[in-house]
Amino acid sequence: MKIAIYGYGNLGRGVEYAIKQNDDMELFGVFTRRDPASVKINTSSAKVYRADDILKYKNDIDVLIICGGSATDLPKMTPALAADFNVIDSFDTHADIPTHFANVDKAARENKNIALISAGWDPGMFSLNRLYANAILPDGKDYTFWGKGVSQGHSDAIRRIDGVIDARQYTCPVDTALESVRRGESPELTTRQKHTRLCFVVASDDANKERIENEIKTMPKYFADYDTTVNFITKEELDKNHSGIPHGGFVIRSGKTGENNSNSHIIEYSLKLDSNPEFTASVLICFARAIMKMKSRGDVGCKTVFDVAPADLSRLSHQEIVKTLL
Amino acid sequence: MKIAIYGYGNLGRGVEYAIKQNDDMELFGVFTRRDPASVKINTSSAKVYRADDILKYKNDIDVLIICGGSATDLPKMTPALAADFNVIDSFDTHADIPTHFANVDKAARENKNIALISAGWDPGMFSLNRLYANAILPDGKDYTFWGKGVSQGHSDAIRRIDGVIDARQYTCPVDTALESVRRGESPELTTRQKHTRLCFVVASDDANKERIENEIKTMPKYFADYDTTVNFITKEELDKNHSGIPHGGFVIRSGKTGENNSNSHIIEYSLKLDSNPEFTASVLICFARAIMKMKSRGDVGCKTVFDVAPADLSRLSHQEIVKTLL
Repeated sequence: MKIAIYGYGNLGRGVEYAIKQNDDMELFGVFTRRDPASVKINTSSAKVYRADDILKYKNDIDVLIICGGSATDLPKMTPALAADFNVIDSFDTHADIPTHFANVDKAARENKNIALISAGWDPGMFSLNRLYANAILPDGKDYTFWGKGVSQGHSDAIRRIDGVIDARQYTCPVDTALESVRRGESPELTTRQKHTRLCFVVASDDANKERIENEIKTMPKYFADYDTTVNFITKEELDKNHSGIPHGGFVIRSGKTGENNSNSHIIEYSLKLDSNPEFTASVLICFARAIMKMKSRGDVGCKTVFDVAPADLSRLSHQEIVKTLL
Repeated sequence: MKIAIYGYGNLGRGVEYAIKQNDDMELFGVFTRRDPASVKINTSSAKVYRADDILKYKNDIDVLIICGGSATDLPKMTPALAADFNVIDSFDTHADIPTHFANVDKAARENKNIALISAGWDPGMFSLNRLYANAILPDGKDYTFWGKGVSQGHSDAIRRIDGVIDARQYTCPVDTALESVRRGESPELTTRQKHTRLCFVVASDDANKERIENEIKTMPKYFADYDTTVNFITKEELDKNHSGIPHGGFVIRSGKTGENNSNSHIIEYSLKLDSNPEFTASVLICFARAIMKMKSRGDVGCKTVFDVAPADLSRLSHQEIVKTLL
C-alpha cells in the first residue's frame, strides 16, 4: 500500500513513523504547502512534493492521509481531495461532523473513491467504545473524561494573553468523580466536577502576574467553568518539563441488566498516551489499511470508524485473527 | 426482530431479560430439552417449546440464540441449527474456535443462513479490544487479566472432591502485576504472577479439611500453578455471600511509537460485571441485531465479532450515531 501524507506537522510526522511499523505499507511522499526544499523528512525512500502538484501523482497513491487542522483546513481539504484520492482524516470538531460527512461523501461517491473521516482517539477509538457500550447496555449512562493531557487549544488561548511568552495547559480528570462513576453510582456531574485545568505559564519580566492569572481563570468557555490552577515558571522549566504532548482519557458506561435491573456493569476504556499525535497517526494508519480492503470489495463513499469491520484493520489473515486474537 | 432462545439456564434467562431492554426485539419463545411444562419463563407473550420441535417454527424465528455449554452442547448444536436458522452462540473454548468456525460456516453457507460464534466478553469484547489494540500498536505487548470473578469450571472442580458439599472459586488478578503493566513496564509474567485463586468451600462435617485443602492446592491445571487460598465456610455463608456470578477483567496493550520508539502508550479495556451471564446475554443480543442487518444485505456464512461493523450493533440510524456518538 502506497501512502501519501498531506500536511507535515506533528500528526504528519507521526504518520510517517507509524508507516515504518507496518510492513505492508510504504510512504510515497509528503505533500506540503511550504517550500518542499525547506521540509526535511525521515524516510529516505520518499520525497517531498508541493501540495499544488498532487494531481500529478493521482495514480501513485493508494491512500492519502490528510494531516490538516479541523478549524479551517479539513472542511475544505478533505472533500476537495476525496474527488481524486482515497482519503482519511482526523476531523475532530464534533458538532460539525455530520456536515463534513455529507460533503466528503458526495465528493468520494461521485468519483468512486472511498474516504474515512474523524479517525483518531476522540473522535475515533473513544467513539467506538461509546457505541459498543451503548449497544450492549441500553439502560445506562455514559461518561467521557479527558486527561491528564495537553490541550493545544487551551495552551494557545493562554499564549494570546498580553505578557505571556509561552504556556502549557493540562486537562485533568477529577479522581473523585472518576471513582464514583467506576463504583456505578451514576452521578450527575457538572463541567467543574469532571475536569480541572492546570496551567504552566511563562510571563515576561515586566508582566503583572496577578492580572494574567485572573485573565486565565475568568476566560469564558476555556477556563471560567473549571477549577484552574496557574503556575508561573521559567521558559527553561517549560522546555525541560513540559515539551511533550501527552494525552489520554476514559470512556465509561455503567448500566443495569436482569430482573428489576438489579445487576450493575461497568465498561471502561482508557488511554494513556505519551504522544497524542503519534497515537492518532497510528489509528489513522490502520483505518487506511481497512478502507483499502473495503475499496477492493467495491465499497465507495464516506465512512466512519463505525462502518469498519475490525478484521479489516489487521495485517493478519482472517484465519490468523480467529486463531490468535478471538 | 423475533428472537428464540435455545437452552434456558443462566445465559438463556439473561437473554430473555436483555430482549426486554431492546424495543426492536421480541421473544418468540424458549426451546428446552426439559419438559416444557416444567420450565417457567418471565415473558408472558412467549411460549416454551420442546427443543425437538424447533423445525416446526423455522419461519417464525429471525435469530436463534443458542445458550448451551461449550464443552459438549455447542460443537454439535450450532452447526446443526445453522442449517435451518440464523444463529448466534457464545462458544468459548478458545483452542477449538477455528474448528467450530469451519463447521458452522459450512452449515450456514450451504443453506444461505448467517451465524455468529463466540460472542460474549471473552471471547467477544476482549477479543475485539485485543484486535483493535494490536492493529493500532504493532510494536507492543498484550495482557489479559481476569477477575475478580467466579469461575464456574474451577468451582465445579472443587465440588468433585470427596467431602465437599459446595464451593465457589474466585479468580483474582494480581494488583502488582496489573500496576506494572499499566506503568508500561512490559513485564514477563508467569501464570502465578498474573492471577490468584480464592476458594470458599463447604465441607461435610466428617470431612478431613486438611486433605481437601491439599487436594485443591495441588490439583494440576486448575490450581497447582497458582497461589491458592482455601476458606472453609458454612453452607449458609456460601448462600448468603457468594450466590452471585460476578466477573470481569482487563485487556491491556502497551506499545511504542515514534522516533526510536521513544513514546509509550497504554490501551486498557476493563469490565466489572455483577452478572457474567447477563452481560454475555447483552452482548449476544446486539450481535443478533447486527447479523440480521448483514443478512438483509445478502451476507451469509459464519461470522465472528471481528466481522461486524460496529454501526450494525446499534438500534440507532447511521445519521444518529454519527451525530451523537462519534
